[in-house]
Amino acid sequence: MPRSSFSSSLSSPKVNFAIDMGHPLLNHTVDGFLKIGTVAASRVAVEETYHCIKKGSVSSNGLEKSLKKMCKEGAYWGAVAGVYVGMEYGTEKVRGTRDWKNAMLGGAATGALVSAACSSNGEKIVIDAIAGGAIATAAEFINYLT
Amino acid sequence: MPRSSFSSSLSSPKVNFAIDMGHPLLNHTVDGFLKIGTVAASRVAVEETYHCIKKGSVSSNGLEKSLKKMCKEGAYWGAVAGVYVGMEYGTEKVRGTRDWKNAMLGGAATGALVSAACSSNGEKIVIDAIAGGAIATAAEFINYLT
Repeated sequence: MPRSSFSSSLSSPKVNFAIDMGHPLLNHTVDGFLKIGTVAASRVAVEETYHCIKKGSVSSNGLEKSLKKMCKEGAYWGAVAGVYVGMEYGTEKVRGTRDWKNAMLGGAATGALVSAACSSNGEKIVIDAIAGGAIATAAEFINYLT
Repeated sequence: MPRSSFSSSLSSPKVNFAIDMGHPLLNHTVDGFLKIGTVAASRVAVEETYHCIKKGSVSSNGLEKSLKKMCKEGAYWGAVAGVYVGMEYGTEKVRGTRDWKNAMLGGAATGALVSAACSSNGEKIVIDAIAGGAIATAAEFINYLT
């Protein structure tokens, strides 16, 4: 049975979602979608706020556009993150180990999938898969460093 | 005294550098530069190999171009990663805690620095700082998920 909880505080933003979909793979994917979608939507919100401050005025038309952009970017980043988290989880289960190669394979699969979904041609998909693998590997390494 | 060691094996590529520069901040920065630079150079190598296989021929001219591209991309990614790792380390020391806000602040500082170094104008620097912070936060969250 789907169970969901949400917690946040105003003083210090804590991102803490827990939605149980009944399967770890689904949980990971939904978690990735929500968290990264939130980050992307926040980015757009901050960026649009900066534009408003710079212009010195807030129009209802501009606000509507900003909200639409938040939803669009949040959904896009969230979808990519969800695919990646699911792919990495699957790779880990298939390979049976946890290392940077999971991130590389998961990133490559995500790059290929997202590229294919955006109706790219064959060559572009391979290039995007290589780039996805490299970016995921880099993010994994950065994380071990810090 | 600078001390360096290098270990790798052919059967399974292990990325393991250790260069002691005498200060943790410098060590982190150099480590980030080398690791992420290696990832970026590998990405170019794989991409160029794919192009060669597709074309079915290897020319010495193309090989030289590929090597130059590997060095350029490796240095660029490495520099960005080095700045980010240094910034996150510095933020951690100043704030005294380890959480995702370090990644956000480090990413924002890196975005602003890299954007300023590429001689962008004021507005572009703010936008790049916001994007940098968002990407770093997303990478940090992804890492907790997987």
